Amino acid sequence: MHFVDLILKKRNGGRLSEDEIRFFVSGYVEGRIPDYQAAAMLMAIWFQKMDERETADLTFAMRDSGDTIDLSAIAGTIADKHSTGGVADTTTLITAPVVAACGLKVAKMSGRGLGHTGGTLDKLDSIPGFSTEIEMDRFRHIVADCGLSIIGQTSALVPADKMLYALRDTTGTIDNISLISASIMSKKLASGSDTIVLDVKMGNGAFMKTKNDAECLARAMVSIGRTAGKKVEALVSDMNQPLGNAVGNSLEVVEAIEVLSGKYRGDLCEVSLTLAARMLLLSDMAEDEQAARQMAEDALGSGRALDTLAAMITAQGGDAGVCANTSLLPRAASMVSVTSPKSGYIREIATGEIGMAALLLGAGRATKADTIDLTVGIWLKKRLGDYVNEGEELAIFHVNDTTKLEEARSRFIGALVLGDKPPVKRPLIHAVIS
Amino acid sequence: MHFVDLILKKRNGGRLSEDEIRFFVSGYVEGRIPDYQAAAMLMAIWFQKMDERETADLTFAMRDSGDTIDLSAIAGTIADKHSTGGVADTTTLITAPVVAACGLKVAKMSGRGLGHTGGTLDKLDSIPGFSTEIEMDRFRHIVADCGLSIIGQTSALVPADKMLYALRDTTGTIDNISLISASIMSKKLASGSDTIVLDVKMGNGAFMKTKNDAECLARAMVSIGRTAGKKVEALVSDMNQPLGNAVGNSLEVVEAIEVLSGKYRGDLCEVSLTLAARMLLLSDMAEDEQAARQMAEDALGSGRALDTLAAMITAQGGDAGVCANTSLLPRAASMVSVTSPKSGYIREIATGEIGMAALLLGAGRATKADTIDLTVGIWLKKRLGDYVNEGEELAIFHVNDTTKLEEARSRFIGALVLGDKPPVKRPLIHAVIS
Repeated sequence: MHFVDLILKKRNGGRLSEDEIRFFVSGYVEGRIPDYQAAAMLMAIWFQKMDERETADLTFAMRDSGDTIDLSAIAGTIADKHSTGGVADTTTLITAPVVAACGLKVAKMSGRGLGHTGGTLDKLDSIPGFSTEIEMDRFRHIVADCGLSIIGQTSALVPADKMLYALRDTTGTIDNISLISASIMSKKLASGSDTIVLDVKMGNGAFMKTKNDAECLARAMVSIGRTAGKKVEALVSDMNQPLGNAVGNSLEVVEAIEVLSGKYRGDLCEVSLTLAARMLLLSDMAEDEQAARQMAEDALGSGRALDTLAAMITAQGGDAGVCANTSLLPRAASMVSVTSPKSGYIREIATGEIGMAALLLGAGRATKADTIDLTVGIWLKKRLGDYVNEGEELAIFHVNDTTKLEEARSRFIGALVLGDKPPVKRPLIHAVIS
Repeated sequence: MHFVDLILKKRNGGRLSEDEIRFFVSGYVEGRIPDYQAAAMLMAIWFQKMDERETADLTFAMRDSGDTIDLSAIAGTIADKHSTGGVADTTTLITAPVVAACGLKVAKMSGRGLGHTGGTLDKLDSIPGFSTEIEMDRFRHIVADCGLSIIGQTSALVPADKMLYALRDTTGTIDNISLISASIMSKKLASGSDTIVLDVKMGNGAFMKTKNDAECLARAMVSIGRTAGKKVEALVSDMNQPLGNAVGNSLEVVEAIEVLSGKYRGDLCEVSLTLAARMLLLSDMAEDEQAARQMAEDALGSGRALDTLAAMITAQGGDAGVCANTSLLPRAASMVSVTSPKSGYIREIATGEIGMAALLLGAGRATKADTIDLTVGIWLKKRLGDYVNEGEELAIFHVNDTTKLEEARSRFIGALVLGDKPPVKRPLIHAVIS
């Protein structure tokens, strides 16, 4: 098999066989296929697309490029969730403890974030003492004992994804449904869970801007999961404003704990509970949607979910005292109030720009080499549809380095569109794909 | 400028500016843009194409990637020709001496062939003593004195083409009109001639299979030439059978000398004289087409063209005695007669397969590393439309290594389609693009 013939086949609209796709993935990972041929193939795939079967074959070939995690020793159903990423999207830190408190086992391997804020791992790093580098055996024990553990992906998990993602990032081939689906699902399938609920974000703060694109991605991933014999379901949820109020790593842990403490509800709580209910239902822990929702509500309202989070924090070496007292979490040196330059209803929020403002404060990584300041970020005081008066507080910036403070402030202010009338209210959940 | 943004621009159907194209070419040649990003760009160009302006900018950026040849010291008009390549396509060795004998100066830098037979340089290598590695000053003197010199391209001439061609070859991005045009024309423009006649081959033995594709390529190259301020014209000529009767390196030199000696005419002679006449007309050496043709005929008929070839051979260290006695050229050890297994009119010749049969005998290179046997090849005895009886001789194979003789013979026989009726006669010249 000459790889250039496979490039030509795909370029000319042909369908790659399972063998050909495995030849591509293993050849690339093992260094027989050079970067430049893989790059040409990725661009050909971008133009000609892959069908459902090819996408599944690509996913499975990527899954099999490294270690796969065996969780069969853990009793009970192992459930996983994945979000395609948005701003103030802290659902994992709420949903996972909720479903674990209901008896599901959550063995989650997360990544670090590239973008406006960190990923789940970066957020957890802000908890004093907490470690996400845990040996596989201890990971399994923590899941069995606490119902929940969240650790970092090992480098041996899906090496094909690390290589292909880096190549796609530099060759303009990120935004293809098949390549995105295979990247996400290969890691989910290698992680060994029984059921997977996917949260596909849609809107101006998400990778998928339109409902159609988000549904396509959701369907592609659900189809891969089904082909792999896993129970998979996807929600399409709204990302036309930050989901929570906190944008930043330790700030998002604070907000997750406040939600789990029952201190307040809101969109973040609502989406987290919806995801939890879908996970419970998909894992046959509840009779119907209503019962599943009630289980999730009870786990939250009773404080059992927060206790589960505390147990995991302790098991992973962290200070569980943060669950009772969030002031134990590290904070930035100063807080800066950002006020509105005019009055009106908040009609639109350019959500990605809010993320960029947080990144300017130091909360995220523009490139992989950047370091994150875990304490800085933005706490929003207003949401879509709220009326603000001139001079009224819109947000509090948590700041250490003030170099880019003014740039962040003007970017933040520029992200808001105010008007005379409130905007039409959007649903939080746009679709369920199962 | 981030190169990934340029990849995305082209991928999404945008038009690259001159600066962006120069950033690409110089960045790639100088190692700032890695192979994999260049590969992704080439595939994006393959899908989205380049317009006339982009194609010209690419050509000029490639031309300027290395040395350009200054021929201004040579008095008179410097003319060049180029063939896109076919089987038994020895026109340069006939056309160039013909026009030089008419007073045009031909300063030709040729390449080695990759495919069924060698390039012009390989053919010339079969002349005892002949050198194609000539210093630039001596090259100019030979052109001034003999009217004609043919040497190898230096590695400093259009390095961008060498790099991009090698990358295209391995990434499935050869067959794009803009990339082909830029590859050919960058070298022609760097070679310093005043006028250029292009011979675009069309048919089953050529890269361009259809008249439409061949005309598109011809128009693209003529447009580049015009933008560069050069006089450029293109013929589209037929390649649905080998142009001459000889396929192989020294055999093609034999045939060129026989044509220049007036021993026989035929399609090779006809196309060579047509090219010569177009070169004379384009270079203002003749009043009209008919006068140009007459000049070319006279140069051939008088023996002056053959004398010009002999003078060049002597000037470049070769044995000009081959012009009077072709048996001084090296010959293969044995000749094998190939006969027809049945009777009928030759209705079709799979021309590329005839080339492959010659390659199996050792006349060409399958990869750049292969060595050529300059003496082997095929001498055809029949052409399209000829009637052959069962057992009648179709060709003589000139053979040294007999390992693949039977494979070559069956490939040759398989290339001929015989039938009850003669085929419709095709024109030799399909179009003139000027």
